[in-house]
Amino acid sequence: MSDTDTDIRGTAAALGEAVTRPFPGSRRIHVSGRRADVRVPMREIVQADTPTRNGPEPNPPLAVYDTSGPYTDPAAAIDLCAGLAPLRADWIAERGDSERLDDLSSRYGRERRADTGTTTWRFPAERTPRRARDGANVTQMHYARRGIVTPEMEFVAVRENQRLEASRDDPALGRRHPGEPRGASLPETITPEFVRDEVARGRAIIPANINHPESEPMIIGRNFRVKVNANMGNSAVTSSIGEEVEKMVWATRWGADTIMDLSTGRDIHETREWVIRNSPVPVGTVPIYQALEKVDGEAEALTWEIFRDTLIEQAEQGVDYFTIHAGVRLPFVPLTVDRLTGIVSRGGSIMAKWCLAHHRESFLYERFEEICEIMKAYDVAFSLGDGLRPGSIADANDDAQMAELRTLGELTDVAWRHDVQVMIEGPGHVPLHRIRENMGEQLRHCHEAPFYTLGPLATDIAPGYDHITSALGAANIAWEGTAMLCYVTPKEHLGLPDKHDVREGIVTYRIAAHAADLAKGHPAAQIRDNALSKARFEFRWDDQFNLGLDPERAREFHDATLPKQAHKVAHFCSMCGPKFCSMAISQEVQAFARERGLDADSALETGLAEKAQTFREQGGAIYHRR
Amino acid sequence: MSDTDTDIRGTAAALGEAVTRPFPGSRRIHVSGRRADVRVPMREIVQADTPTRNGPEPNPPLAVYDTSGPYTDPAAAIDLCAGLAPLRADWIAERGDSERLDDLSSRYGRERRADTGTTTWRFPAERTPRRARDGANVTQMHYARRGIVTPEMEFVAVRENQRLEASRDDPALGRRHPGEPRGASLPETITPEFVRDEVARGRAIIPANINHPESEPMIIGRNFRVKVNANMGNSAVTSSIGEEVEKMVWATRWGADTIMDLSTGRDIHETREWVIRNSPVPVGTVPIYQALEKVDGEAEALTWEIFRDTLIEQAEQGVDYFTIHAGVRLPFVPLTVDRLTGIVSRGGSIMAKWCLAHHRESFLYERFEEICEIMKAYDVAFSLGDGLRPGSIADANDDAQMAELRTLGELTDVAWRHDVQVMIEGPGHVPLHRIRENMGEQLRHCHEAPFYTLGPLATDIAPGYDHITSALGAANIAWEGTAMLCYVTPKEHLGLPDKHDVREGIVTYRIAAHAADLAKGHPAAQIRDNALSKARFEFRWDDQFNLGLDPERAREFHDATLPKQAHKVAHFCSMCGPKFCSMAISQEVQAFARERGLDADSALETGLAEKAQTFREQGGAIYHRR
Repeated sequence: MSDTDTDIRGTAAALGEAVTRPFPGSRRIHVSGRRADVRVPMREIVQADTPTRNGPEPNPPLAVYDTSGPYTDPAAAIDLCAGLAPLRADWIAERGDSERLDDLSSRYGRERRADTGTTTWRFPAERTPRRARDGANVTQMHYARRGIVTPEMEFVAVRENQRLEASRDDPALGRRHPGEPRGASLPETITPEFVRDEVARGRAIIPANINHPESEPMIIGRNFRVKVNANMGNSAVTSSIGEEVEKMVWATRWGADTIMDLSTGRDIHETREWVIRNSPVPVGTVPIYQALEKVDGEAEALTWEIFRDTLIEQAEQGVDYFTIHAGVRLPFVPLTVDRLTGIVSRGGSIMAKWCLAHHRESFLYERFEEICEIMKAYDVAFSLGDGLRPGSIADANDDAQMAELRTLGELTDVAWRHDVQVMIEGPGHVPLHRIRENMGEQLRHCHEAPFYTLGPLATDIAPGYDHITSALGAANIAWEGTAMLCYVTPKEHLGLPDKHDVREGIVTYRIAAHAADLAKGHPAAQIRDNALSKARFEFRWDDQFNLGLDPERAREFHDATLPKQAHKVAHFCSMCGPKFCSMAISQEVQAFARERGLDADSALETGLAEKAQTFREQGGAIYHRR
Repeated sequence: MSDTDTDIRGTAAALGEAVTRPFPGSRRIHVSGRRADVRVPMREIVQADTPTRNGPEPNPPLAVYDTSGPYTDPAAAIDLCAGLAPLRADWIAERGDSERLDDLSSRYGRERRADTGTTTWRFPAERTPRRARDGANVTQMHYARRGIVTPEMEFVAVRENQRLEASRDDPALGRRHPGEPRGASLPETITPEFVRDEVARGRAIIPANINHPESEPMIIGRNFRVKVNANMGNSAVTSSIGEEVEKMVWATRWGADTIMDLSTGRDIHETREWVIRNSPVPVGTVPIYQALEKVDGEAEALTWEIFRDTLIEQAEQGVDYFTIHAGVRLPFVPLTVDRLTGIVSRGGSIMAKWCLAHHRESFLYERFEEICEIMKAYDVAFSLGDGLRPGSIADANDDAQMAELRTLGELTDVAWRHDVQVMIEGPGHVPLHRIRENMGEQLRHCHEAPFYTLGPLATDIAPGYDHITSALGAANIAWEGTAMLCYVTPKEHLGLPDKHDVREGIVTYRIAAHAADLAKGHPAAQIRDNALSKARFEFRWDDQFNLGLDPERAREFHDATLPKQAHKVAHFCSMCGPKFCSMAISQEVQAFARERGLDADSALETGLAEKAQTFREQGGAIYHRR
């Protein structure tokens, strides 16, 4: 342990001001559902008035989706050593189908707790886990299929609507292009019943382990807002527990809908406990990483028993979804031999090595139903890993990838027979023109289970900029129907991301996700674009900053050349200077035209617009010489 | 003038080391055409050998397109006060259709030269301009239509091929996905005759003013590599001449195929002379900006005479293409009144104001044939400006935009009657799903004249990240057929870009352009992806950095966690650490499988891959319980 880690109890309780300060011009609000205890958080951005000749015209406050939990709320008391309030605890308990255990079920978990060497940095508030009663199934899918609308589903419905009804009819904010949904079915208003239907048919998942009652429910499905996951985790080379917790808070601040803890270093168990207890968003992991740690990194030494104990250990900590590479089957490994870049998934390469070394079928594949039994006892969702995803443009959409994808479809059927929630992981590296094929094959073979892709990177030639190479693919595949995008940071292929990289990666992916929402025609998407553009046109600089995905950077960039407060109302910026501002001139033009009663309709009525047509018809003499 | 400007003669000759240092592992080479004096520059990246059991296997050096001129060549002597060598001078002279004038034709140019106040910072090497002889037409299109293959066309052909023949048949480098060209016709090898054909039919342009003989010929058309333009220019608020010249060199270093000088501040004339004399790439401008300066920023005071003199002034300096907003017609202005963000093009808003104030048709539209006469006397290409492009998602693809686009099509016909080269500027802000319509309308109305778009931004909600919001649109519209992308920097909407922003913007746009080249199936595109991915898989870290678009950043990111030279051959990085590197494990897997004679074919032969199918056919019992 480094000194930083040993100090976590002292320091972590005080997260850096930059990590928790409220967003400018914003406050955290809660919108109630039908049940009084469904209180859905949103961030409300206030706007300045628009000055007009007839006096100031108010601009309505805008509610935006907020993943940051209570951390950005100055009224919230944050104590990392106590963890977040368990907002779902009553909902889980009142269902009566789970029980609090007397002890941890995982041998490793118990060993670790008994190890006095970990006490100084262990999460201080001890707790015992919950598990389904014998024979019970506590998954959201199980409830949905029995026709039950859970509080989680109601929470999700309110959250997805984003108070759309407040802006839909506004003449400026409500403007909207019809979308091109590519097979998605986006309702104008999302009801709790719609959420239930989507979960029941497997087209969406609500990752919500009963041991992670602190999380604010969210949904992953193609008929909902596109989501973004941020990876984090320490490795053997760097990182500490304190950094990881702060990175989680930081990631949710910028818009991570879920986080994955991909730690591979020491103290994974303790790090994870700190992260989950303090995470307002679902947490995913790749359990094989920890299993491999337990056998000192020797893939061949992995056993089903060690893996099983790891699943239970993590399920009882509250991990909401597990990446499981059960589609990496022995017969597929030779399909990767002639690839340019082989197997680039860590989990995939571990399992391929195991299969080859033992010349046996993967235990993940053979034991899949036993895994389902564990998942449904805690409501852990599957994220079926794409261990054979392409690691280069050359390997995109090859036989290995597609063989695995078909297997993931079979496994989806198996999981659904257990009412276990499933999403499917996808590539990787894919050129733009072969992205649609990926989505089409996924929909076909995996029966519309949500797709969760890593990018894909649309080219390999820009290490240092792979957040961008992959955002190109991500926006396109999300438009095609991918439900959640796994972010990529600028450090991809080169090193472990720091806080700057995490922010850069998440904002980039929120852009890709939003661009896809606009293209699909998500009913709430364009409102924010409209509000921001209106603010921009009206030179409400502060509103323009505050309505953006990263108000702090927008202001900082503006201040780099025009730092004075007076410039925040100036009708120009440093790009063009005062005399050349098109927006300023355009405002004059609009005022001038309006004074004369000219508008688009009158242009047509008075025949002005037809003149061009007349010119064309006069045989190409396109102007009259004076 | 600031002190920096007055010092330009002293300091500019010594550009910063960071601006001119050679790319690592690279050297500038020249590939000859049929004519001995056609010597086409490329950058050759050398690679390390791949160690194998049978000894080292060499990896061939890779030639990549190089826009940086001699600045990155340590053997080249750079003297900013003398300008670059006029490599096209003999080609222009030997055609015999132009003559060197005794004096400048523009009144303003002569006044400016006579102004002793400018002598201290004026470009020192005086020159007199060239102009077509009476009745002659010196455009590349004119030659092409008469069946002449100019040295410029031959230069372009060699340049576009990128020594493809050296790598095409390499088993690793030559792998390639068939493209989806969306109507483009990309030949396997580009011949000078193909270049001539494309220029003759107007589907491509070679911007090559006879007064800019220093530029290295390049081509803009949908059947060639997608190009990127970088904007620069001082404004009333900031920037100096020295900075502008350095920014131009900096932009070409990172891959700008052309630059546009959008200066609106003082000393535009002198800044431009410095930039053009030292620019290895074509230079574009928006002459109305300078014309407006000449009337003290009063749009209403603009006259044809002032504008005409400005065109001649700039044409005689060597500007290669002019943005001219001749499609902003009086009857279209009312169509913008109900827009969310009005007119956001500077040139567009200036002309709209002029039209409204005078209630007259635009003089750019009325005098268009006279403008053509000027263009063909110097071979300045039109970049027909989209003065009514949408400035927000809400305004995308609206009537104003489409009315202007149709007019640009009419004007294209007029220009082509004069054999004047034309490209068409495009938006702006467009959601992903309405991009294809933009390209389709452009192709239809403008007869396949090259499209040159600014992004488009696929969402408005991320000020501070608009290089990314726009790269999403740029990659997609380039795939659809856009020939050149105008970059957007992170400072868009917020302030004037600095050097960091220029680099960020250009590399981002090179990514978008390359992603489109891959999608279209450009025959040379995937070679670089393959070479880089092979280097990555083989842990040739230096090669991986050097083959990327920004080797310096890739190395810097890697060194942030693993700075030692020993790590440049390590079989892991800090992302996953040594035990968890999928690529390292995957190499073991490949070696293991190859030892046993397993490959994709044998997998099928031995029936291993079919097992999955058998399982499925056995009725869903997907594994055998042990």
